[in-house]
Amino acid sequence: MGIKIGILGYGNLGKGVECAIKQNNDMELAAIFTRRTPESITPKTAGTPVININDAKNWVDKIDVMIICGGSATDLPKQTPEFAELFNVIDSFDTHAKIPEHFNNVDSAAKKGNKTAIISVGWDPGMFSLNRMYANAILPDGKDYTFWGKGVSQGHSDAIRRIKGVKDAKQYTIPVDSALEKVRSGENPDLTTREKHTRECFVVLEPNADQKQVENEIKTMPNYFADYDTTVHFITEEELIKNHSRIPHGGFVLRSGKTGWNSENSHIIEYSLKLDSNPEFTSSVLTAYARAAYRLSKEGSYGCKTVFDIAPAYLSPKSGEELRAQML
Amino acid sequence: MGIKIGILGYGNLGKGVECAIKQNNDMELAAIFTRRTPESITPKTAGTPVININDAKNWVDKIDVMIICGGSATDLPKQTPEFAELFNVIDSFDTHAKIPEHFNNVDSAAKKGNKTAIISVGWDPGMFSLNRMYANAILPDGKDYTFWGKGVSQGHSDAIRRIKGVKDAKQYTIPVDSALEKVRSGENPDLTTREKHTRECFVVLEPNADQKQVENEIKTMPNYFADYDTTVHFITEEELIKNHSRIPHGGFVLRSGKTGWNSENSHIIEYSLKLDSNPEFTSSVLTAYARAAYRLSKEGSYGCKTVFDIAPAYLSPKSGEELRAQML
Repeated sequence: MGIKIGILGYGNLGKGVECAIKQNNDMELAAIFTRRTPESITPKTAGTPVININDAKNWVDKIDVMIICGGSATDLPKQTPEFAELFNVIDSFDTHAKIPEHFNNVDSAAKKGNKTAIISVGWDPGMFSLNRMYANAILPDGKDYTFWGKGVSQGHSDAIRRIKGVKDAKQYTIPVDSALEKVRSGENPDLTTREKHTRECFVVLEPNADQKQVENEIKTMPNYFADYDTTVHFITEEELIKNHSRIPHGGFVLRSGKTGWNSENSHIIEYSLKLDSNPEFTSSVLTAYARAAYRLSKEGSYGCKTVFDIAPAYLSPKSGEELRAQML
Repeated sequence: MGIKIGILGYGNLGKGVECAIKQNNDMELAAIFTRRTPESITPKTAGTPVININDAKNWVDKIDVMIICGGSATDLPKQTPEFAELFNVIDSFDTHAKIPEHFNNVDSAAKKGNKTAIISVGWDPGMFSLNRMYANAILPDGKDYTFWGKGVSQGHSDAIRRIKGVKDAKQYTIPVDSALEKVRSGENPDLTTREKHTRECFVVLEPNADQKQVENEIKTMPNYFADYDTTVHFITEEELIKNHSRIPHGGFVLRSGKTGWNSENSHIIEYSLKLDSNPEFTSSVLTAYARAAYRLSKEGSYGCKTVFDIAPAYLSPKSGEELRAQML
């Protein structure tokens, strides 16, 4: 019997968790919970029960960890505290500014129910945060840099789609190579928003839309595009589907720091991700942390935690002996 | 009052720890312990007591964590178990094959003395191990690659120095760029030893030494050089001192893995270090883990641990609240 995982929400993230469970022999998919009509969902994993979210409370004894796969804007602030009282839970809450508030809400709920919750799991927040934290602890005298991409920004793509005359769009965030090289060289540059990333947009117009007008609206859009060098390509719907249907992403976390009695030595720590599928990678991180939540709950370590609070060994199916012999 | 650190052994590593303590406001250097005549040592930190190693037992109440800065070949297998019974300790034991044995010895001693010990701390073993482990937990279906360099290998430099006719030498291990690029591209190549690294040697000869003979002895030396493409440069002692006195190092840990129901998506996780000073960076990692050992001992978490067993937050001087608000 493996760790019994529940998936709450069967979108890109939930489907990614389903794939990740298949790769982890110590886990099994116990059920999928949904707000939709359960009959409308056909899981890839044959025989998996699909349950209405309102009946989840009947599953408290049949689920070891619930991976909550909703969105950060409206789903997770409500769902994670609600379910943390009933289940051990993992989420990928990524609204950085609201993490402290979300943490407190989830912590109260999890402690009330004697459950283990791990929030903001993924790659940013998640693996990027971990790498920032380790690098800061090792090199206290230094400077942090984060670059995102090349990858699809869902928020920016949506912003373009809301423009009148736009039928569909995909936006790529691209780190500027020369800026990245400056950081790697140890120059410790101060970089403006424009110097760090460029934005490339692929846009499908509605019939009779004003191309010039759309391009201008994109390039001058405050917060989203005005502070960046933005390129806009107008393409057909067929081209968009053929060449821009995947959801790649990634990025770079660097810390440049000094050591020595007179700060005479420089060091660069760099962590990077190149991901074909942003949601599937996030799902794989969520699934590894589900193993940690399961073990911590068995130890009676309840309440809300983040990636900072979890000893790395909890993520691995290997024993301490195996890890020391094979991975150290 | 900060965390009171003792340094055992005042070589490159010990001096690096001294520099690192200066960068961490919550720590102070309590004393340096040495096998040499204490009078022969002048610490950079004014007023630091220098104590003969045989008198260390009188310091058990004055040291929170002892950072043991000896070598892995003969010092640490003896010193770490011995001192782990008296002090919370950190070491950088790096003989990979003997880690399980060392762990058991230190674990028994630390548990006997109710102390916290963390072994094999540094970058490999250490940060590289952590990154291998995280990446394996996230991408179970994948392949690991480690490249070292560009950097000075002490062991290989020593091996050259033992050749008759050699006065002094420095050896650099250099990762092969094209191999690294193949891994980054997601090709999952099988790489031979020769394909991954080259070796570059800078050698100062004794007067009347046979240059051809020395070059041949280096290039054909089993284990050290025979399996590599090796370049040998003969230079003057002045050139060696001027251009090759620093101890840079670094390297790359990569994992290439698949996700998706039919393994249709590829991901690359890469961690890399570019270090001006190998010992100072290692010392900075040791010092961060000393903070963790101090906190774990306060919690009564005794025995031997490795980087896999330590929750990241223990390394940081920041509180949980600060970490969540600033770094997540």
